[in-house]
Amino acid sequence: MREYGEFDFIESVCEMFRSMPSNGFEGIGDDCAVLPIGGDEALVFTSDMLNEGVHFLTDKSTPFQIGYKSLMVNISDVAAMGAKPVATMLSLALPNERFGEWSEEFMSGYKKASKRYGVKLIGGDTVGSKTGVCISVTAIGRAPMANIKRRSAAKVGDVVMVTGRLGASAAGLRDVLADKLTTRNAKFHLMPEARVKEGVWLGERECVHAMADISDGIASDLQHIIEKSKRRAILSEKAIPVACGASFDDALCGGEDYELIFTVDKRQADNLIERFQEQFGRPLYKIGRIVRPNYDCYQIGLESDEGVIYSSAGWGGFSHFGWEG
Amino acid sequence: MREYGEFDFIESVCEMFRSMPSNGFEGIGDDCAVLPIGGDEALVFTSDMLNEGVHFLTDKSTPFQIGYKSLMVNISDVAAMGAKPVATMLSLALPNERFGEWSEEFMSGYKKASKRYGVKLIGGDTVGSKTGVCISVTAIGRAPMANIKRRSAAKVGDVVMVTGRLGASAAGLRDVLADKLTTRNAKFHLMPEARVKEGVWLGERECVHAMADISDGIASDLQHIIEKSKRRAILSEKAIPVACGASFDDALCGGEDYELIFTVDKRQADNLIERFQEQFGRPLYKIGRIVRPNYDCYQIGLESDEGVIYSSAGWGGFSHFGWEG
Repeated sequence: MREYGEFDFIESVCEMFRSMPSNGFEGIGDDCAVLPIGGDEALVFTSDMLNEGVHFLTDKSTPFQIGYKSLMVNISDVAAMGAKPVATMLSLALPNERFGEWSEEFMSGYKKASKRYGVKLIGGDTVGSKTGVCISVTAIGRAPMANIKRRSAAKVGDVVMVTGRLGASAAGLRDVLADKLTTRNAKFHLMPEARVKEGVWLGERECVHAMADISDGIASDLQHIIEKSKRRAILSEKAIPVACGASFDDALCGGEDYELIFTVDKRQADNLIERFQEQFGRPLYKIGRIVRPNYDCYQIGLESDEGVIYSSAGWGGFSHFGWEG
Repeated sequence: MREYGEFDFIESVCEMFRSMPSNGFEGIGDDCAVLPIGGDEALVFTSDMLNEGVHFLTDKSTPFQIGYKSLMVNISDVAAMGAKPVATMLSLALPNERFGEWSEEFMSGYKKASKRYGVKLIGGDTVGSKTGVCISVTAIGRAPMANIKRRSAAKVGDVVMVTGRLGASAAGLRDVLADKLTTRNAKFHLMPEARVKEGVWLGERECVHAMADISDGIASDLQHIIEKSKRRAILSEKAIPVACGASFDDALCGGEDYELIFTVDKRQADNLIERFQEQFGRPLYKIGRIVRPNYDCYQIGLESDEGVIYSSAGWGGFSHFGWEG
């Protein structure tokens, strides 16, 4: 029997609160919760927790890197909704010896990332810890209602795209664990960059339907999109853009690349790629297409010269939980 | 030399972010950050973290009590602004052995408190932990802009009031540490009740000027009000309502009572007490008055038959930080 774990818990929590009045918020299940605030505007909200020994190791990351990353992983979720991040709240549990130099450097990293994206720190909490460092960030974003991209919006025929090469973070994690902390991929893993401007820009395009950020690997993040949209996706093996130094598995199942994955009306796909290139000087990558589901089976298929294999055959997303540091 | 600690850190963080654009949010310093959203409405935001061994002990509290309290301490901050809590986000770091029975009971307590006050859970995160349980809650409230009560709004001549007797939680903490877990005060400490309806009702009264919740003890929470308002307060020793089983010190310096402390136009004070009694069937307590500062010295004085002693003489608020469990 499988152990009761994180995903069972999340499912049971969603179930517990399903019957409660929504108070105007749209339900759990996207990168962010959405609150329409009138005047065709919406706020979006997301929270993430990073825990010492699970999400970072204080002997492998500098406090500056940990601070920088804590902000980035949260505003990446905001960008994935097509919204502009505007504010964050930061709660920190710190052992006695982390107050002072460590906490100041952590905040320098957090501030650097906040300034880069114009995000204000509006509150939070600081508490003591008998054990390790625990970091919780809540990010708030803002967007016109019409720009909000939901996981449930993928349509049959849509092209699946990503904003950059994949797998660098997983490859970087291997470097970090082998104490190679200064390789290009290690640095990418320790201090990732959220696609904030890209997310806002894609939010403004009507031809972009569903969107998510790649925090757990496309095998997992695209799976959420097709389940919410009740579709299947077929990815083309040779179209997956693998980052330098990464393996194909890193690109498919590795996490924390923080690129965006989204689906686009196929008639507009090439035009979007052109305009994105003009705007950002970088390409978008077409990696597959959305198709009708087989009965109620919302799978991802991977197409190569040898045919199509489906995700139920065993590949899954990267999970923070249980990662042995 | 004093050690660098929590308060130095918070001060340095505020300083770091002071120069950044506000994105429409009002600054750090109240129980909640405030975002006007148009149509004379505002949202308020607050985050708190509770950490095993510092804020709770898993062998002294049931998971149900911990879940209940995690929600309460947050919506208490929302109520202290005069706002109605509408939603929360919950992030949990849990060791492997806490998934299952413990986490389900925790969520039952969290849900019970959420239902009681009509607060929707809209998101969050669940992560593994190599050490103890860490809980982070962000609460969101909503109110007409005109109802928002700020710490900075106390006026000379105002009467200082509290919504209930004080010190029960500090007395209860002593019971808990002595393994008397089922006394009335122990139960109050382990499962406090936020003054949500009272906060919203007081928010609607123009004669109520400044307000805060009593999370760190009135010596500390009233100090924040008078510093922000640039005033002094004189409390009457014999007017402080001490809870049954609590000492005078518990009432003044104990924390976590989660009553509200606020200042009221003195011409309306008696009328407010009457109407509050009608509405809630309980009294308000007048405990002192707001006076002009001595130069730039914003102190609390405690008046008895023997004269007035000032807070600089040495009594301070309850601090979670460094509390030895």
